[in-house]
Amino acid sequence: MTGSYSLLVADLIGVAVFAASGASAAVAKRLDLFGVAFVGFLAALGGGILRDLVIGAVPPLAFSDWRYAITAVVASLAVFWLHPQLNRLRRTVLLLDAAGLGLFTVTGTLKALDAGVPPVGACLVGMLTGIGGGLARDLVTAEIPAVLQRDIYAVAALGGAVAVTVLSWLDVADPITLAAAAAGVTGVRLLALYRRWSAPVAVP
Amino acid sequence: MTGSYSLLVADLIGVAVFAASGASAAVAKRLDLFGVAFVGFLAALGGGILRDLVIGAVPPLAFSDWRYAITAVVASLAVFWLHPQLNRLRRTVLLLDAAGLGLFTVTGTLKALDAGVPPVGACLVGMLTGIGGGLARDLVTAEIPAVLQRDIYAVAALGGAVAVTVLSWLDVADPITLAAAAAGVTGVRLLALYRRWSAPVAVP
Amino acid sequence: MTGSYSLLVADLIGVAVFAASGASAAVAKRLDLFGVAFVGFLAALGGGILRDLVIGAVPPLAFSDWRYAITAVVASLAVFWLHPQLNRLRRTVLLLDAAGLGLFTVTGTLKALDAGVPPVGACLVGMLTGIGGGLARDLVTAEIPAVLQRDIYAVAALGGAVAVTVLSWLDVADPITLAAAAAGVTGVRLLALYRRWSAPVAVP
Repeated sequence: MTGSYSLLVADLIGVAVFAASGASAAVAKRLDLFGVAFVGFLAALGGGILRDLVIGAVPPLAFSDWRYAITAVVASLAVFWLHPQLNRLRRTVLLLDAAGLGLFTVTGTLKALDAGVPPVGACLVGMLTGIGGGLARDLVTAEIPAVLQRDIYAVAALGGAVAVTVLSWLDVADPITLAAAAAGVTGVRLLALYRRWSAPVAVP
Repeated sequence: MTGSYSLLVADLIGVAVFAASGASAAVAKRLDLFGVAFVGFLAALGGGILRDLVIGAVPPLAFSDWRYAITAVVASLAVFWLHPQLNRLRRTVLLLDAAGLGLFTVTGTLKALDAGVPPVGACLVGMLTGIGGGLARDLVTAEIPAVLQRDIYAVAALGGAVAVTVLSWLDVADPITLAAAAAGVTGVRLLALYRRWSAPVAVP
Repeated sequence: MTGSYSLLVADLIGVAVFAASGASAAVAKRLDLFGVAFVGFLAALGGGILRDLVIGAVPPLAFSDWRYAITAVVASLAVFWLHPQLNRLRRTVLLLDAAGLGLFTVTGTLKALDAGVPPVGACLVGMLTGIGGGLARDLVTAEIPAVLQRDIYAVAALGGAVAVTVLSWLDVADPITLAAAAAGVTGVRLLALYRRWSAPVAVP
């Protein structure tokens, strides 16, 4: 089907960009070749493994479809060898992370809906698919998780998940509208970074 | 059934108090609104998600029943907005944590037994349900996990799980005896905190 | 069957040595009796729980077969009480960790293949079974995960997983060849430690 093929392509692009974000973070931490591949793999596939465990799709795609693991490893190794040409690594990590956030939120929400998870749960699964890989990457590289910092991060993912759930409910979820949802999440995240938007903090 | 309704109510109260414990910890760390909701969600539902994955109940209740997520988020937001009235936040976190520990240990053990997990495994699943959320909360807020500190914490949960398993084996597990088991876990934990009981440390 | 009995024995030996590695790390961190048992349990059974969740074998062996939990706890307590006789704890942790890495990689890969996971996925599941427990141990004791340091660690596990997959494909996977694969993983890891082999780091 065209639909599931588009979903595969979007998923693999998300894997590649999240792997690159993890690998960039690992290179910045001076990890070795295998550390870079491992953090890239974890960032790329951690959210999807969590999603598949939660919706009961075992073994998760990361293990049952070799294209996922290979894509993650190739993208990580590309960053390892090419990064001297990628200056300003920290900015690269943030940009790739925003792109992966959008793609994974959309595909995660769709897969949860397809697996029969009710709407509220599907939104949560979609959000966690989007933020799971970055959270795992930040935990193993000893960064404060981006999701907990004062940026619009999880909320952009949650908004995207709600949008996909509504599109699906209206039966207008096609590659165009879904790509727009993914771009919306990425755009909101990047705008929040650029304008330093932040959510309120509790009054002391 | 009255039994399963009581279990739902006990579970939701556990969700609310653990969410409040996570949200209080997040407010104390000066996280923003979404960070507070996220840590509250993780503390409230992390242990139960782990339990449901382990007993094969997918999608986990946290995603299949919207009341869980809503309860966690509402409790977290209540702490976010009301906390100026809650002075001594650290003490509040410890108290709520003890209450949640008791409730989740009891419901986790019961669900594992209902799912056919053998007694030793059910005790472990119950203990992990009780301590899982607090452990996740402490990891993401960069605290030393309470479970590893010199307090009677995991052992109180383990004792409660054994008590529930024995009650169930004797066929006298009803709302009264189970509430007593939960109160026992909470009481032992609070007494250990108050009297500074601690487990032995290896002789150097 | 002899085959599955050998697999059980190898698995339990792996549980014991990984539990001892976790308990040694916990004793070195001055954790209390329950902290030592908990870290030992997590190091011994964390990788296997992840493996069983991924291959859909729920409840995981750690919960469905009491021998696993008891072995982990007994080994942890033995370290707790006997460690004054075990001098040079850090070296002990590294040695036990290498032995557990070999055993768990082999049993994890075999179980994934038996569960019908394709070859590439089975190699990844085997590697993650081997490194998962040590990774969890390092995260909760606040050490930089060994897998991310400049040693041949994950790659030794991956090599062992590939060897087991090839042995299985050639239909010559018997206790002798599998023990050789496990010993190979352990040997490569120890040689890497002894000779300070390390993987390349990205050129700055």
